[in-house]
Amino acid sequence: MTSQRIGPLSGYPEFLPAGRIVEQHVLDTVRHTFELHGFASIQTRAVEPLDVLLRKGEIDKEVYVVRRLQAADDGSGDAEPSADALALHFDLTVPFARYVLEHAGHLTFPFRRYQIQPAWRGERPQEGRYREFVQADIDVVDRDSLATHHDVEVVAAMADVFARLPLPAMTMQVSSRKVIDGFCRGLGLAEQTGGVLRALDKLDKLSAAAVAEQVAAVGLSAGQVDAVLQLAAVRTSDPAALHATVAGLGVRHELLDEGLGEVTTVLAGVAHLVGERLHVVADLSIARGLDYYTGTVVETRMAGFESLGSICSGGRYEALASDGRTTYPGMGLSFGVTRTLAPLIGKGMLVASRPTPTVVAVAVADEASRPASTAVADALRARGVATEVVAAAQRYGKQIRSAQRRGIPFVWFPPAATESGEHEVRDIRSGEQVPADPAAWLPPASDRQPTVVARGGHDG
Amino acid sequence: MTSQRIGPLSGYPEFLPAGRIVEQHVLDTVRHTFELHGFASIQTRAVEPLDVLLRKGEIDKEVYVVRRLQAADDGSGDAEPSADALALHFDLTVPFARYVLEHAGHLTFPFRRYQIQPAWRGERPQEGRYREFVQADIDVVDRDSLATHHDVEVVAAMADVFARLPLPAMTMQVSSRKVIDGFCRGLGLAEQTGGVLRALDKLDKLSAAAVAEQVAAVGLSAGQVDAVLQLAAVRTSDPAALHATVAGLGVRHELLDEGLGEVTTVLAGVAHLVGERLHVVADLSIARGLDYYTGTVVETRMAGFESLGSICSGGRYEALASDGRTTYPGMGLSFGVTRTLAPLIGKGMLVASRPTPTVVAVAVADEASRPASTAVADALRARGVATEVVAAAQRYGKQIRSAQRRGIPFVWFPPAATESGEHEVRDIRSGEQVPADPAAWLPPASDRQPTVVARGGHDG
Repeated sequence: MTSQRIGPLSGYPEFLPAGRIVEQHVLDTVRHTFELHGFASIQTRAVEPLDVLLRKGEIDKEVYVVRRLQAADDGSGDAEPSADALALHFDLTVPFARYVLEHAGHLTFPFRRYQIQPAWRGERPQEGRYREFVQADIDVVDRDSLATHHDVEVVAAMADVFARLPLPAMTMQVSSRKVIDGFCRGLGLAEQTGGVLRALDKLDKLSAAAVAEQVAAVGLSAGQVDAVLQLAAVRTSDPAALHATVAGLGVRHELLDEGLGEVTTVLAGVAHLVGERLHVVADLSIARGLDYYTGTVVETRMAGFESLGSICSGGRYEALASDGRTTYPGMGLSFGVTRTLAPLIGKGMLVASRPTPTVVAVAVADEASRPASTAVADALRARGVATEVVAAAQRYGKQIRSAQRRGIPFVWFPPAATESGEHEVRDIRSGEQVPADPAAWLPPASDRQPTVVARGGHDG
Repeated sequence: MTSQRIGPLSGYPEFLPAGRIVEQHVLDTVRHTFELHGFASIQTRAVEPLDVLLRKGEIDKEVYVVRRLQAADDGSGDAEPSADALALHFDLTVPFARYVLEHAGHLTFPFRRYQIQPAWRGERPQEGRYREFVQADIDVVDRDSLATHHDVEVVAAMADVFARLPLPAMTMQVSSRKVIDGFCRGLGLAEQTGGVLRALDKLDKLSAAAVAEQVAAVGLSAGQVDAVLQLAAVRTSDPAALHATVAGLGVRHELLDEGLGEVTTVLAGVAHLVGERLHVVADLSIARGLDYYTGTVVETRMAGFESLGSICSGGRYEALASDGRTTYPGMGLSFGVTRTLAPLIGKGMLVASRPTPTVVAVAVADEASRPASTAVADALRARGVATEVVAAAQRYGKQIRSAQRRGIPFVWFPPAATESGEHEVRDIRSGEQVPADPAAWLPPASDRQPTVVARGGHDG
């Protein structure tokens, strides 16, 4: 392989080993937390039939079609994708819906699954938008109907993730489609609900005046536009304030009350997780543009990185999937892992304590005694201590510096390498070197694995 | 989504949740063992420039080209892939070589990495051959030269994986290119070495007579063919027998001795890992067809699944990558995780103790008291006990059966659900129900995570 064509591809982020340790730590925490909440892992294949992917109908999805290089030789290599063309999935929801339909007979419902995998979109690359990115999704899906308490479960599981991760503070914004829907009905505008929702969904991109214009264009009076915008401006973590403020707008409808009740229940269900790292607010501007949401909707902003948009979104959909006989309603959230981590790792705001799992480098007195050093390494590994043997039997000062350069905290000296003729271990950071038994020594708990710490950033 | 186009795709295996737990357990063991041996994780993007992938020159690779669906609208949608076309990687070695060249300035050498990711090949699907499959690779790579003791390290790390996994017995077969190369030189056949290697590589597909014919066709006399086939028949785990048998063939060459020395060193370096689950033998028939191997070569067979071919292969290559100024030699092994697990999981020979991470299902007295049940779940989760709350407040018998159907071992009854008015926990398997404190109770260690066990199979 020569140096031609060697370089980064725009939109395809890759981490150095230290960055990968940060990503692994985050993914481990995500997985552990999802499992604590009783979600089971699945993985789906990277490809789906193209027509299955396009059926979701988001025309802005830039789907990557996959084709065997030699397909042309089979007579199937037309420029236009054929009916059975395959493409890379652009999210984990469409493959999950297909998985549920395909394997329904082998699953127990309500089915609680998490899924951590890459997805691909041919978008124009920019911060927060990648062509290959890892998502971490949780969903609960049931047959025919899904109890609303699952909305709380799903939000609580994801909130628990954010409460555990060393990320900048997250704010989960919760609303329900039923709030705006009920409000519009209360205003006698049932027909205009869809248009109002789509206009409100642009509140974080357009000025309030521009959104007001779009809401008016749907067919609302100036007073109605004003009421809808006042509703969308409601933002509070206090359930009593939420109900009082909305009541103050003077619009009444059963569906509005139902929606507010759902939002309040979600807030109450995650209150014990709220703290420095996690805020949860009712935010009635949250609409989620996608047509399939019918109840709870959630977005999430990361402090100092509001320009990324929502890094964890989702909600309740009455028909995740349907096979004609059975409909599968679901509640799910999708956490954009790459979108969140790539800027934090890139800016050095989330760093690993070392770029290697190795705790101990065993020194080598000379090449002939390498097996003795390897035996020490095996003894340490047997107790779970990640160990490597120094690559070259150079002067000990060089061996120590080589370990230091690799970020390894300890160097072990076997008897052939010490004046005492006993095993000794040296903490490179302090320079302290003490006798040690390869069959008993353990590093301090804080050194056993690389740790991940937040540094600096917007708050200093 | 309707039921059209819902179904499996040939060559793209997917596991049900219980199978995925088996896969996770294996991948966790692989990762943990690689890290114990001081290998750092990296992940590379799924795509590489097509010309980088094709440069490796294995013409039988059925590469999947990736193209944006809307590329045709950009004027770049020709049927023939363009110069900057991207394709899915078909192994992890080519992307690793590119990663090393791209990031060399930020890595410390020798660089020890592992990489666990899917790869894609448009092969005709059959048992052991998939179009999407997970590989687990380890490699050590250095600049300019790489000491031979790294060959032992890499084989030992992979052998340690097999010694820990509940798989059918593995046999790692070790040789060195230098053995056959030196033997041919000793016979005065330096020019014919390549042809001999390629012929011997077919020993597990063709009869000995057919291979003999191919060896003869390279230009060897009957006696030379016989000597080469006798060499290739040497198979022993005893270093002394290895040297004696080869010496008995009466061919001498410095390179042959060097190769035998390397094989012996590898055998000695993994001897402490050999046992019921792992055999390691010198097998001089192992040639690996690929031109880039120059020293140690390894293949691995799984007992009862010999028809899969080698499930873990690799070796020493003098030029993993080169940028014109610097050459990067390496030593690596690649474990075919999907190839190994898909048949074992499919045949029920490797099973999870339950299909969910959940240890405890908390019963619900009625919907009004669901928050009290959720509080119990949160108390258990705080101590690492995976817990869910029963989905519907049905009769308790139904709640127990629902948990049982999900494979959950324990049901927790909060005070509102017990005659005693105290918290109680029931082991569904034994039916035993005892008082318990949500702030203190822990399940038996064996129930905390699903366990993975081998069952039945070829040996009963």
